[in-house]
Amino acid sequence: MNEGVEWAMHCCVNLSLVGPDQAVTAAKLAAYYDLPTAYLNKQLQALARDGIVTSSPGPRGGFRLARPPERITMMDVVTAIEGPEDAFRCAEIRRQGPHAESRESNPARCLIDEGMRHAELAWRRELAARTIADIRAKVLERAPGWTEVVRKRYSTGKA
Amino acid sequence: MNEGVEWAMHCCVNLSLVGPDQAVTAAKLAAYYDLPTAYLNKQLQALARDGIVTSSPGPRGGFRLARPPERITMMDVVTAIEGPEDAFRCAEIRRQGPHAESRESNPARCLIDEGMRHAELAWRRELAARTIADIRAKVLERAPGWTEVVRKRYSTGKA
Repeated sequence: MNEGVEWAMHCCVNLSLVGPDQAVTAAKLAAYYDLPTAYLNKQLQALARDGIVTSSPGPRGGFRLARPPERITMMDVVTAIEGPEDAFRCAEIRRQGPHAESRESNPARCLIDEGMRHAELAWRRELAARTIADIRAKVLERAPGWTEVVRKRYSTGKA
Repeated sequence: MNEGVEWAMHCCVNLSLVGPDQAVTAAKLAAYYDLPTAYLNKQLQALARDGIVTSSPGPRGGFRLARPPERITMMDVVTAIEGPEDAFRCAEIRRQGPHAESRESNPARCLIDEGMRHAELAWRRELAARTIADIRAKVLERAPGWTEVVRKRYSTGKA
């Protein structure tokens, strides 16, 4: 899995802490974790394409969450970065070779594909059940003053 | 995910149909689905390394399942081909940058990593709950005479 998933998750959690009043530039988001700005920007654009963040131009511009963190799941972020495809892609090899089963002779779903998809659905279900707001809530349980800390860090020039 | 996962699953199901009395060469396993023999052989070697199949040399040699298909899960096959690593690998970026959280200042498990692992565990659990014998049983439900068909196909020269 693309390392951008981890980056995007942390950025979303941090943007949820910063709140909707303040936009954060890609440069500041990158500097916070010492990430390459151009490459992080690609991930942020992917989040923007999927309507997870919005970007605004200008001197006070930057990125904000596009909707409340309660409505952004971990699955949304993974899908934005990794694409919507399943990790396992059935190439239907049973339709190949000298004994190929045609769609007419065997229209039934491949049982291996079925098992793999079942597992992927379980994975998706878990990720869809956790939101950025859930993670933020747990962060604030551990460190109640964290919102102010993060806001301050992003508002100064030092990233 | 490597296409070898699908190949390996089909080979294991077919070997379970063939049964322990008959070994099948990589060439025959490959010809059945019109797969490249050398590349399939790599997957079969990976299955052998993990104790899922055994290979025997000689004119009547080839591959057999190394244990009953009731004791080979889909997870075993995926792990043999893909390796045991999680798809998401946390690089701990929170320990990077000017505000890096040290292991002393914040020893707690990263909550994003925790969420991702929770989902991977759900995926693993599903795959670990399905065996090659389960798939074979469903195949035979759909096509009761399939064991004989597959045995015959592999026993002839035509693969």
